[in-house]
Amino acid sequence: MKIKYTLLKEEKNTKARYGKIKTNYGEYETPMFMPVGTLATVKTLSPEELKEVNAGIILSNTYHLWLRPGEDVIKSAGGLHKFMNWNGPILTDSGGFQVFSLANKKDITEEGVKFKNHLNGDSLFLTPEKSIEIQNKLDSDIAMSFDECIGWPASYEYCKSSMERTLRWAKRGKDVFNNDNQSLFGIVQGGEYEDLRKHCACELSKMDFDGYSIGGTSVGETKPIMYKMVEMSTKYLPKDKVRYLMGVGDPIDIIENVMRGIDIFDCVSPTRLARHGHAYTKYGKINLKNAKYKEDFSPIDSTCDCYACKYYTKSYIKHLINSNETFGARLLSIHNIRFLIRLTEDLRKAIKDDTIISYKEEFERNYYGKKDN
Amino acid sequence: MKIKYTLLKEEKNTKARYGKIKTNYGEYETPMFMPVGTLATVKTLSPEELKEVNAGIILSNTYHLWLRPGEDVIKSAGGLHKFMNWNGPILTDSGGFQVFSLANKKDITEEGVKFKNHLNGDSLFLTPEKSIEIQNKLDSDIAMSFDECIGWPASYEYCKSSMERTLRWAKRGKDVFNNDNQSLFGIVQGGEYEDLRKHCACELSKMDFDGYSIGGTSVGETKPIMYKMVEMSTKYLPKDKVRYLMGVGDPIDIIENVMRGIDIFDCVSPTRLARHGHAYTKYGKINLKNAKYKEDFSPIDSTCDCYACKYYTKSYIKHLINSNETFGARLLSIHNIRFLIRLTEDLRKAIKDDTIISYKEEFERNYYGKKDN
Repeated sequence: MKIKYTLLKEEKNTKARYGKIKTNYGEYETPMFMPVGTLATVKTLSPEELKEVNAGIILSNTYHLWLRPGEDVIKSAGGLHKFMNWNGPILTDSGGFQVFSLANKKDITEEGVKFKNHLNGDSLFLTPEKSIEIQNKLDSDIAMSFDECIGWPASYEYCKSSMERTLRWAKRGKDVFNNDNQSLFGIVQGGEYEDLRKHCACELSKMDFDGYSIGGTSVGETKPIMYKMVEMSTKYLPKDKVRYLMGVGDPIDIIENVMRGIDIFDCVSPTRLARHGHAYTKYGKINLKNAKYKEDFSPIDSTCDCYACKYYTKSYIKHLINSNETFGARLLSIHNIRFLIRLTEDLRKAIKDDTIISYKEEFERNYYGKKDN
Repeated sequence: MKIKYTLLKEEKNTKARYGKIKTNYGEYETPMFMPVGTLATVKTLSPEELKEVNAGIILSNTYHLWLRPGEDVIKSAGGLHKFMNWNGPILTDSGGFQVFSLANKKDITEEGVKFKNHLNGDSLFLTPEKSIEIQNKLDSDIAMSFDECIGWPASYEYCKSSMERTLRWAKRGKDVFNNDNQSLFGIVQGGEYEDLRKHCACELSKMDFDGYSIGGTSVGETKPIMYKMVEMSTKYLPKDKVRYLMGVGDPIDIIENVMRGIDIFDCVSPTRLARHGHAYTKYGKINLKNAKYKEDFSPIDSTCDCYACKYYTKSYIKHLINSNETFGARLLSIHNIRFLIRLTEDLRKAIKDDTIISYKEEFERNYYGKKDN
């Protein structure tokens, strides 16, 4: 089936929304944070651990799975869920962002993008049709249209022609889309120019996608510009469809963008930070490599309910990180993902209570108030 | 409390023994395989996963914990069990083997061993007293006497003087030993010379240790010589104390040495092999990197009851290993450890049934019968 989004409540003072998405694998509340399982695994974690941190939808990357192990292997396995033993919903991106950020020597034409892959330099050609074909085979629950993700800053003229091509690509992808169990999202581009964002959002809405993504953020712009781009996009999107802000996962950015009408987020940062020994806490990010944690036998965050905080100390996790023991990255990944999911749980409550502004103020006071590195 | 070993049954046709060890953390059957948690973590696994594969005692390394995080940190944490959240028995080695295999520029005197550590080249000095002091602080359930582990081959003269020093070191360690909750084992050395092994075993027995280890194997000798060294040692050890063969974990070696009267084994191989993509199976070791597993959607070993074999395919694990995703090493570690523990479970049954010879023959027929790499 296609996903079904239901808007249940709009917060009184902001554009924040509380809603529900019905998927092939159950119903989930929004706002929601999606952990990223790039290569059909959320780095270091098992599916059971993802359920334990209350993950809903997870994200997997079309570009990476196209290269390894290849979409045909996953199709033969019976689809991505079966391949990776994940009995929950999966969203796949289109590959557009990876072509932008990882690939070498891009050559963008109306037909698609020619580039050299980041693993061995082989020439590849990704088109809107190919991206959809791969995603259809992966059999994720939600697929993305292929778009051009452009950097920041970019001129009005470039943003305009790129956004217009992204619209044509969205249509081409929709035309060949062929999987009744999968939903397809359109992606709003247009840089920091309101008329372009508006045009893109309105044209995509006319094409009636199952949901809408906002692209072109987290590419070097400042936070105020990111928030402006989001505002300029959500404003013109239909209220009865879900909105996904791609690649954003900083706690403050999640709060700010929920207040601008975003429902779904994803980001690699909780697992990437974990591998470097960093942990989110109520009082800001901490670096477990810091010497002061050597004999700190308290949990990472005493307000956290995750497995790492229940059973392990900063001292032990610091030791694991210092010794390159992967169980350290695993414990920090569990904690960091749970931290962001807990944040969205709190935001849902604040929306229901119409208290999101005071929630944000208190969160920021704590988060920015005390730092150690 | 000290551990208490009870010999429950001797196999009719061999020297194999079925027994039980009572520890501070419950009672466990022998023969037993101990997973190795070098740095206070069995690489990639959680304590819950160790319980799930039915691990009993686990091993941790004194030398490594001495360097990182340091025994005083672990003592401050309340001991190794609390530090690493392991609610089961722990055996620590003495550091003797790591000094032999890892350290640079060794200078062995009657007092102890001067050497440069393998992490940063710092000068260190390990003595029998220091090894015991560290282990007392770690608060493992079973500690090892500090011994000199010598390579193979070694002359009769060298083995004799080294073994005599190991006896003097065993006494020195015993004299300073100071932890009522911990047991202390003596280590039988003596190379491949029966009179030396006999002398060492008899002298250690007179000193009345809580258990006995057999050292100086897995250092380059052939399998027949290893088995001979073991035979020459167990022959002279008291029947009412547990016997531990250090660093041996090849499935065939486990069977052969159980038949020579060994009760406990440890080895890093299941987790090390896992990191390289290798898995034990009933039909021999397989290498998941092999191209033929690309679309093999069957489990690693259809006769295995582990988490990896229950929920994952060779194709998926191969993909994880090829992509350097640590969840692959985790799944293979679970499987390989479970494989060796299952082997000891089968051996216990075979001892009770007096069928160990036919068990061995069938195991070898399968294990050596079909190879792929």
